Amino acid sequence: MKVFKKIGYARRGEFETVHGTVQTPAFMNVATCGAIKGGLDAGDLREVGCQVMLCNTYHMHLRPGDKLVHELGGLHKFTGWRGPILTDSGGFQVFSLANLRKITEEGVKFASHIDGTRLFIGPEESMQIQSNLASTIAMAFDECVENPADHAYSAASCARTTRWLERCQKEMARLNSLPETINKQQLLFGINQGCVYDDLRVAHMKEIATMGLDGYAIGGLAVGEPTEVMYHVIEQVEPYMPTDKIRYLMGVGTPVNILEAVHRGVDLFDCVMPPRNARHGHVFTWAGRRNLNNEKYAKDTAPIDETCTCPTCRNHSRAYIRHLFKANEMLAMRLCVVHNLHFYNTLMERIRESMDDGTWEQFYDQYRQILDTRI
Amino acid sequence: MKVFKKIGYARRGEFETVHGTVQTPAFMNVATCGAIKGGLDAGDLREVGCQVMLCNTYHMHLRPGDKLVHELGGLHKFTGWRGPILTDSGGFQVFSLANLRKITEEGVKFASHIDGTRLFIGPEESMQIQSNLASTIAMAFDECVENPADHAYSAASCARTTRWLERCQKEMARLNSLPETINKQQLLFGINQGCVYDDLRVAHMKEIATMGLDGYAIGGLAVGEPTEVMYHVIEQVEPYMPTDKIRYLMGVGTPVNILEAVHRGVDLFDCVMPPRNARHGHVFTWAGRRNLNNEKYAKDTAPIDETCTCPTCRNHSRAYIRHLFKANEMLAMRLCVVHNLHFYNTLMERIRESMDDGTWEQFYDQYRQILDTRI
Repeated sequence: MKVFKKIGYARRGEFETVHGTVQTPAFMNVATCGAIKGGLDAGDLREVGCQVMLCNTYHMHLRPGDKLVHELGGLHKFTGWRGPILTDSGGFQVFSLANLRKITEEGVKFASHIDGTRLFIGPEESMQIQSNLASTIAMAFDECVENPADHAYSAASCARTTRWLERCQKEMARLNSLPETINKQQLLFGINQGCVYDDLRVAHMKEIATMGLDGYAIGGLAVGEPTEVMYHVIEQVEPYMPTDKIRYLMGVGTPVNILEAVHRGVDLFDCVMPPRNARHGHVFTWAGRRNLNNEKYAKDTAPIDETCTCPTCRNHSRAYIRHLFKANEMLAMRLCVVHNLHFYNTLMERIRESMDDGTWEQFYDQYRQILDTRI
Repeated sequence: MKVFKKIGYARRGEFETVHGTVQTPAFMNVATCGAIKGGLDAGDLREVGCQVMLCNTYHMHLRPGDKLVHELGGLHKFTGWRGPILTDSGGFQVFSLANLRKITEEGVKFASHIDGTRLFIGPEESMQIQSNLASTIAMAFDECVENPADHAYSAASCARTTRWLERCQKEMARLNSLPETINKQQLLFGINQGCVYDDLRVAHMKEIATMGLDGYAIGGLAVGEPTEVMYHVIEQVEPYMPTDKIRYLMGVGTPVNILEAVHRGVDLFDCVMPPRNARHGHVFTWAGRRNLNNEKYAKDTAPIDETCTCPTCRNHSRAYIRHLFKANEMLAMRLCVVHNLHFYNTLMERIRESMDDGTWEQFYDQYRQILDTRI
């Protein structure tokens, strides 16, 4: 990637892919099963300013099946989204959703959470599935250790994650050379692990930094540890992350988490929080967070955020959306998901603009005080 | 209303309201609680070619309350829909959804299906609620007798419906003259009843035809009787419906029902079938109906209807939508509701065009053979 500007640790750059250039810092919008929860399609994603769509490998492997997606021309043709798509490795969902997991050096045996089917995913299988999905960026298959995990287990797991990463690289090189592969320029990101142990995190990052991956992710965070621990881990590994490669903090987070991580040198994010909160009427604004279920919005004709330009705020009032939640109308969720994703994408845009025009530090100082407050 | 052209009994016309002109024959899109089921808002309604939105008085009275809607400026401001809105009388829902109903000459006592609250709606209350909602067109409060109902009960009910209609007219005239009324030009449609008895239907229609209403509806049909009975009732009452007033067949129906009713002189329709079927993956096409849950669509990259110009058909395949249903993604329902409403509104547009260009009879003959078939 190109880094245009560095302000402290914060980086303003861009990242080229075969499906278009990503302006960073950037937030990826999560379409677990190939659709955004709340009823948004690819056209809606363009409307809310999405740059990168993220799909979950585990879910797509189970249903409709990656072979079917391959047969239909890959995720881009299947979903109608033309920009970059990142697929995760499936590992996190195997560990968090599937049943009867058994980890060996080969990979993970598990039972589908949908119908109990016994399945196996190892590094090669993860690469094959992601190659079938034909995403722009594939994630390496890693073990997400439970938090807390002891030092010895974490060290052994890190070592295995490195061995799996080597297998991922080898398998992806093979897949990218096959005639039937849809995206022969699929990129591979490696994932830093090491739980909350500085020595493991740093050693693992140093190790994978030499492996020439297309991007580097920090994994295993935002899984219940205190926010300060997450910031501390970023600070520990940042000096060892290649400066010419994009840096992705997986599964993070609140608007303030994002500001803090950008401040510490992260370029790329993803999180299910914007749609998930939206589906419960919890919306983000430039003055803080609102809960639209609150009685005080019953007669409130203002939009969710008076300064917001999203389709929801241009057209609908807090009172109407609150009514839709009370009446269990799907439209309530959709309107709030549209707003929250637009808010997150606009947050990233304003972060980038503030870096471009030299006001990043003021922007960071101002909004980290505000954005997570409840109003 | 103006009738430009008559072909047999079929009428091509337009109907002016304070919120815009309606080209007829027309189909009203049902937004029960002020939103279309499946997550469509006012902007989506414009996109699918909707001319008139229909909201349910009973639902809006219970939640959020018609007084709140009045305080916020009426349904147009509340929902963002700027075109004509028809509200029903609340009667049908009181009879079909509410509990513990007791009918007297005054009106109907009932218990809310939401929280059991004891409520009362009579002709005056129905007019007051609809005036608060500030719809373009209010429907008179009538009794929907159960089908089958015996001749004596139906006759007594018809007589009461006429007495209620007089009270509705009087109350609406009063409400339209009040300074606090939002839409002082609210229109009132009367409703023909009489169950399946020709003599009652005809006598009642003759009676209300003299009352100078803004439009005439045929009610109490599409409630389980054979289709042929419905067509027969239309044929019986049609000669007694004023020719200069719009004619509305309530709660109808399938595409073929609509063709048959237009053929018999009806101008206006509403039905929950397009969104309800859509939510189960049942979609309408110009070649007949499809069930997208069918296995045969798993790898089908064609749109729902190759000839359709709706946003769903422009952007998504049968295979993708089928996958979304299997994955329980809200987007599945939304995409199909968009398609089905667009199909119904386009059906009406093509009916009008065929009347304009002199091909209505061929259109009717061709499509009544096709549209209800399963493909």
